[in-house]
Amino acid sequence: MEEKSNILKYKSLGIYTQNENVVYMREDCHVCISEGFEALTRIRVSNMSSSIIASLHIITSEVLRQGEIGLSQIAAKKLKVWDGETLYVSHLEPIESLSFVRAKIYNQKLGYTAYKDIITDIIEGDYSNIHLSAFITACAGDRMDIDEISDLTKAMISSGKQLDWKKEIVVDKHCIGGLPGNRTTPIVVAIAAAYGLTMPKTSSRAITSPAGTADTMEVLTNVTLSGEEIKRVVEQEGGCLVWGGTAQLSPADDILIKVEKALDIDSEGQLIASVLSKKAAAGATHVVIDIPVGKTAKVRSEEAVQKLKEHMEAVGNAVGLKIKVVITDGSQPVGRGIGPNLEAVDVLSVLQNKRDAPQDLKERGLLLAGHLLELSEKVETGKGLDTAKELLESGKAYQKFEAICKAQGRFSKTYVAPYQFEMHAPKRGKVKKINNRKIAKLAKLSGAPQSKLAGISMNVRLGDEIEKGGLLYILHAETNGELNYALEYYENHDDIITIQ
Amino acid sequence: MEEKSNILKYKSLGIYTQNENVVYMREDCHVCISEGFEALTRIRVSNMSSSIIASLHIITSEVLRQGEIGLSQIAAKKLKVWDGETLYVSHLEPIESLSFVRAKIYNQKLGYTAYKDIITDIIEGDYSNIHLSAFITACAGDRMDIDEISDLTKAMISSGKQLDWKKEIVVDKHCIGGLPGNRTTPIVVAIAAAYGLTMPKTSSRAITSPAGTADTMEVLTNVTLSGEEIKRVVEQEGGCLVWGGTAQLSPADDILIKVEKALDIDSEGQLIASVLSKKAAAGATHVVIDIPVGKTAKVRSEEAVQKLKEHMEAVGNAVGLKIKVVITDGSQPVGRGIGPNLEAVDVLSVLQNKRDAPQDLKERGLLLAGHLLELSEKVETGKGLDTAKELLESGKAYQKFEAICKAQGRFSKTYVAPYQFEMHAPKRGKVKKINNRKIAKLAKLSGAPQSKLAGISMNVRLGDEIEKGGLLYILHAETNGELNYALEYYENHDDIITIQ
Repeated sequence: MEEKSNILKYKSLGIYTQNENVVYMREDCHVCISEGFEALTRIRVSNMSSSIIASLHIITSEVLRQGEIGLSQIAAKKLKVWDGETLYVSHLEPIESLSFVRAKIYNQKLGYTAYKDIITDIIEGDYSNIHLSAFITACAGDRMDIDEISDLTKAMISSGKQLDWKKEIVVDKHCIGGLPGNRTTPIVVAIAAAYGLTMPKTSSRAITSPAGTADTMEVLTNVTLSGEEIKRVVEQEGGCLVWGGTAQLSPADDILIKVEKALDIDSEGQLIASVLSKKAAAGATHVVIDIPVGKTAKVRSEEAVQKLKEHMEAVGNAVGLKIKVVITDGSQPVGRGIGPNLEAVDVLSVLQNKRDAPQDLKERGLLLAGHLLELSEKVETGKGLDTAKELLESGKAYQKFEAICKAQGRFSKTYVAPYQFEMHAPKRGKVKKINNRKIAKLAKLSGAPQSKLAGISMNVRLGDEIEKGGLLYILHAETNGELNYALEYYENHDDIITIQ
Repeated sequence: MEEKSNILKYKSLGIYTQNENVVYMREDCHVCISEGFEALTRIRVSNMSSSIIASLHIITSEVLRQGEIGLSQIAAKKLKVWDGETLYVSHLEPIESLSFVRAKIYNQKLGYTAYKDIITDIIEGDYSNIHLSAFITACAGDRMDIDEISDLTKAMISSGKQLDWKKEIVVDKHCIGGLPGNRTTPIVVAIAAAYGLTMPKTSSRAITSPAGTADTMEVLTNVTLSGEEIKRVVEQEGGCLVWGGTAQLSPADDILIKVEKALDIDSEGQLIASVLSKKAAAGATHVVIDIPVGKTAKVRSEEAVQKLKEHMEAVGNAVGLKIKVVITDGSQPVGRGIGPNLEAVDVLSVLQNKRDAPQDLKERGLLLAGHLLELSEKVETGKGLDTAKELLESGKAYQKFEAICKAQGRFSKTYVAPYQFEMHAPKRGKVKKINNRKIAKLAKLSGAPQSKLAGISMNVRLGDEIEKGGLLYILHAETNGELNYALEYYENHDDIITIQ
């Protein structure tokens, strides 16, 4: 058996599979036959410098010629392979950490080393979706205790980059999502930085929502900054509001989250490890966590949120983070706007102390900022809210916000969407329910967040009395086609807003 | 938004992905853009007559041209699509049964309807590997009680074809695998049919082992028979020994087993449901189950086997099957041969009462046949073994075996492999351990089961005294290359047989 026989020439096929390593080989390829490879076999693919594990898809057409091998784009990128390069394939050595996953499936408690090995192999790309899903499922549903969640969190922190701001206190905030328009982050950062705290805020783009903080901030300033640029902004202004996607913090989290989304579950242990590992890796020391609770929010019951709060604080303690969980109302969207541009409008109107600024957004921003000031121990307990209010209403927070945006490269105006469509009440009555999930869906169908101007501006809140024909909300879109998508959804769902 | 915009023309790409439905669309395809499809999005793909769910892989090359769409072979087969046919793609409606999977992840008990819905959607191909893995993991590790295993088994039985032999008593046997050479089935069928019982035995081909009963029987006769042909053989001879792959019995099982293999777990609940659903769907009423126990067998401890036995009998009872579990020694291979042809040699020598027939195989065959005769209630308790022995030693079982083979189309001779290599003891001593898994691996590397003549013939058993240089076993191969594969593995593993 000569090594030569397992050698094939790479041909780019241009197949994009997100994070899945796929290798393409011909059915009649001598390597497949001699090695006994079958479709979906996980095999090792190597070049001179590196190697990956990939699932085999077998080509029975002339897409590949004899002696050629293809890779999905992510796999080609990891191997840094070039067209015509020689690749070597071989049977997979056992993935040792899967024995820990199996132990977890069989209800055994795992320790730090086991989680560390699992996370390392996940980042390597050694786990297939089947393995990832089994790991997530085995850890879901109360199957991890505080020790285990802490060990998993530590393993995730140490698996990626870790930022060090050379400050004793670095504050951060996080919201356990699910509430459209809940864009308090820019307000909290502006207040905290105006107070003199260090708050290097990295945010995500929307994954399933109509806007993430990074999408909203991108309307107003640049959010894709290099590590050096972020450092400069934070040193200069004490805070930043950037996209965290390039930071490679807790990289296993991004892989696990995609599988959790496919399963549509939020395992408590994974959720805590995900949030706290990102915060710790980003160099935070004191973190306020906003958990909105409501029937159509992510966390739906008082009981669930109390448990989550306790566990979050305990795990924070174990990994060296001071955590303050703030439970907020999650029964309806926050502010008026839903979608990047419309949320930016809300944020600016609060920071500029405009008379018509959405008061609920302002109050939430102040509440969280107040807690953060107190948690930092720089402001006496009981005085956080007043201090935050003074910073906001004096215009100091707005000045700081403007300075941060300018330091990030620009401070732009908000826009008006070219297509708007008013939605009116079908009858007279009281606004009884607002379905957060369906409102979010509607905003997404209208184009948010890809179309930055798209989204919804709400005109009613729970408890409002409305006349028949009164304005409920306005759909905003950049194209007529997207507006029509949203309208079609609207026509098929009469329970987006319930009037009684 | 006109429907027309979601229409694409099918182009065959010839990509084989086993059971995974994959749809290929261009990155710049207007449908991807307007629908917001991303890589790995699960989408519905339809033609005029049918529809499937598939995961999206995005093409960024000229493998597809504008307006074209591709499918993995399994997906194309399910849709019965032809080149150039118009396909329509759309967003996926929620898969309702996934809510039951989520409930199971969160430790809730599921009932028959829930399992039925899950199994139905699995057979439809609606579950991705992520969903399948989550379902299997959520059901593993003692997370199913007897009621649930029974409900799952019933759901699996009713999900596929169910055979009806129009007999009050139909016997069957099954071995919970893991023991090389344990080829008792042909012996048991021959004895049971010779006694006059109805035993329409369908067997599998090897999945991970060096031979399945179907592979072994194929050396001696035809095993790929149509339903009609099987019926004729069974009516004529009372028994058959065919491949069960075409029967579409409990089809969900085949899908789940592939994922379990990838995870390398045997969830007890899934194992019981798998075995019993196949038996019940095949029309069996009385089933003997052989569970070999040993350190390198599938079931490794006395404790595990006792629980498995109890649960298997309880679930059998719940689904209307009479089950007798027979626990056997799983510490070493059975008979001499490992591999299709070599196991056929052993089976024939036992049936022909040859003086050098492997006694352990004979004894196991008689033990299981005896239990089966008693379980059928046709033979008095305590007299099964003697009755079986009489049928074997009188030659009646062999006559019946020959008749069955001939009814299946041929009765062929066994062969001698062209390449053989003797393995000798490196030192004097006693045979202390035989690693079943490694012996099986060695037989597979030598070419079994694809190369029917390949495999291993053992020359020692546990406890044997052997001289330095004494014969341990012989490797058999059809090609020199395969022989070298096996030798290379041998050279890297000195614990295949332990001599002390």
